[in-house]
Amino acid sequence: MTIDFKQDILAPVATDFAAMDKFINEGITSKVALVMAVSKHVVEAGGKRMRPIMCLLAARACGADEMEPYRKLAAIIEMLHTATLVHDDVVDESGLRRGRPTANATWNNQTAVLVGDFLISRAFDLLVDLDNMTLLKDFSTGTCEIAEGEVLQLQAQHQPDTNEQTYLDIIHGKTSRLFELATEGAAILAGKPEYREPLRLFAGHFGNAFQIIDDILDYTSDAETLGKNIGDDLMEGKPTLPLISALANTTGHEHEIIRRSIATGGTSDLEQVISIVQSSGALDYCRKRAHEETESAVSALQKLPESEYTQALYNLAQLALHRIQ
Amino acid sequence: MTIDFKQDILAPVATDFAAMDKFINEGITSKVALVMAVSKHVVEAGGKRMRPIMCLLAARACGADEMEPYRKLAAIIEMLHTATLVHDDVVDESGLRRGRPTANATWNNQTAVLVGDFLISRAFDLLVDLDNMTLLKDFSTGTCEIAEGEVLQLQAQHQPDTNEQTYLDIIHGKTSRLFELATEGAAILAGKPEYREPLRLFAGHFGNAFQIIDDILDYTSDAETLGKNIGDDLMEGKPTLPLISALANTTGHEHEIIRRSIATGGTSDLEQVISIVQSSGALDYCRKRAHEETESAVSALQKLPESEYTQALYNLAQLALHRIQ
Repeated sequence: MTIDFKQDILAPVATDFAAMDKFINEGITSKVALVMAVSKHVVEAGGKRMRPIMCLLAARACGADEMEPYRKLAAIIEMLHTATLVHDDVVDESGLRRGRPTANATWNNQTAVLVGDFLISRAFDLLVDLDNMTLLKDFSTGTCEIAEGEVLQLQAQHQPDTNEQTYLDIIHGKTSRLFELATEGAAILAGKPEYREPLRLFAGHFGNAFQIIDDILDYTSDAETLGKNIGDDLMEGKPTLPLISALANTTGHEHEIIRRSIATGGTSDLEQVISIVQSSGALDYCRKRAHEETESAVSALQKLPESEYTQALYNLAQLALHRIQ
Repeated sequence: MTIDFKQDILAPVATDFAAMDKFINEGITSKVALVMAVSKHVVEAGGKRMRPIMCLLAARACGADEMEPYRKLAAIIEMLHTATLVHDDVVDESGLRRGRPTANATWNNQTAVLVGDFLISRAFDLLVDLDNMTLLKDFSTGTCEIAEGEVLQLQAQHQPDTNEQTYLDIIHGKTSRLFELATEGAAILAGKPEYREPLRLFAGHFGNAFQIIDDILDYTSDAETLGKNIGDDLMEGKPTLPLISALANTTGHEHEIIRRSIATGGTSDLEQVISIVQSSGALDYCRKRAHEETESAVSALQKLPESEYTQALYNLAQLALHRIQ
């Protein structure tokens, strides 16, 4: 079966999604023209809005029907995501994201740092309005862990000794944690504590799979399908799973090429690295790990009552896998 | 009377201050070594910790005696302040702060941006633990306004048409707003709503006076007393009150020199600008405005019962004025 994003994932919450989009635009009002201009620019550059969709689906899966607070929560999730992207682009000195000029490129680093700060504060401000202390604690702890994950990634840059556990810690912080907030937050707001853990586990494992797949594509895809250049991670000396696995599977000359590439960064050895990553079975291992994480995600979902919403979450997990098939 | 910081301001809350300092160090724990190293570096580089001291004095002035929550609140204020400094140093590309290398200089911009994000998140995380929704709303709104003030300052850079009202909006956001959170926050936590407005007004006007004085010193002080170079604001084309006032008081050639200096930045005309700022009466006007703001601050303070704590806050306002006498 071919999964269609709009039909098989978005459709059950299409109305909520449209309302959520409106909240995002309303939520980023500011007296300061430059804050408005930059915020609009980065929020409009958004992708599929996968995180807020997960939040809305999780809310419905918990039996929510008065959806206004969840639409707000989903908008908050997207604002937090946007804020981290704006700061990531400063950190990575990126000029383009999804084919559009980044905030730091369109304005400058200064503006991007400060508008990112505004978006984080505004997201918390809207969250406080939801008036739920458990939700606030979950989010304030979660955003700490997200920032820690980003720093851990920076710390691991150019470190060939980074192991799979550290890699998992990094991707949990930088990717999966916000997915967890999106779905677990919906359960908290719905007053369904019994669904918090299954929804967190679903989102956490799905997030891991999603990031592993993204890291595979950095060695197999091309700019057209991925929206970024092949070898970007290698360029920055990021020890992602394909390289960690290649190091585990090789010795001698090949092993040294991978180590050196992580340590120095740059893409002068890109072709060789791609060849080693493929021939050593590293990509196969990564695909296996992505499937395992997806299975764990799907299995956690079974603790929730079956509905079109859990089905849509299941479809989302399967669709992500299609990118590496 | 010569006011001594330690004796006449800090002394009434010296015990609380020491406990607060301990909370700061405990509050910035992280599993990630780089987060710890950078956080310690920037928090230890702290100055007089004026903001948390104001928070502690405000709490005592409200009659608080079980001080643990206020010590935490004061620590949170200092963490938020530190986070904005870390991002400011990235924005201003500063290499030194208070004579110590900045985080961006010691590590890099990337690390500074992300650790700043961590400190903001951690501050909110500790704030949530204080379990007071009114306090959370005050802080979440306030931090939005702080970020907006910073962006407004960026937007006004190189704009000679910036007027005094816009200048006041900028300094309210970037400086006074956090002072307000420090004192008004104490009143909220103390359950003394009747003291919220007087303490906010005190801190807001004091913050304005403090920043105006700082901006005067950029044209009259030297690196040794100020910890920054004379002409820093001019270098960046910042239209601070001395220049706004000089523009209002001059015509012809002198007027044009000031306009051009704001528009282009740089310090090639620094001596001439200093001379015009002095001869045009701009500095006198700034001093008058600093005194007026201090009087408004002190006047607001009179709504609180007299105590050694209100006296210390009064002393703080007077001490700030001494810098321009």
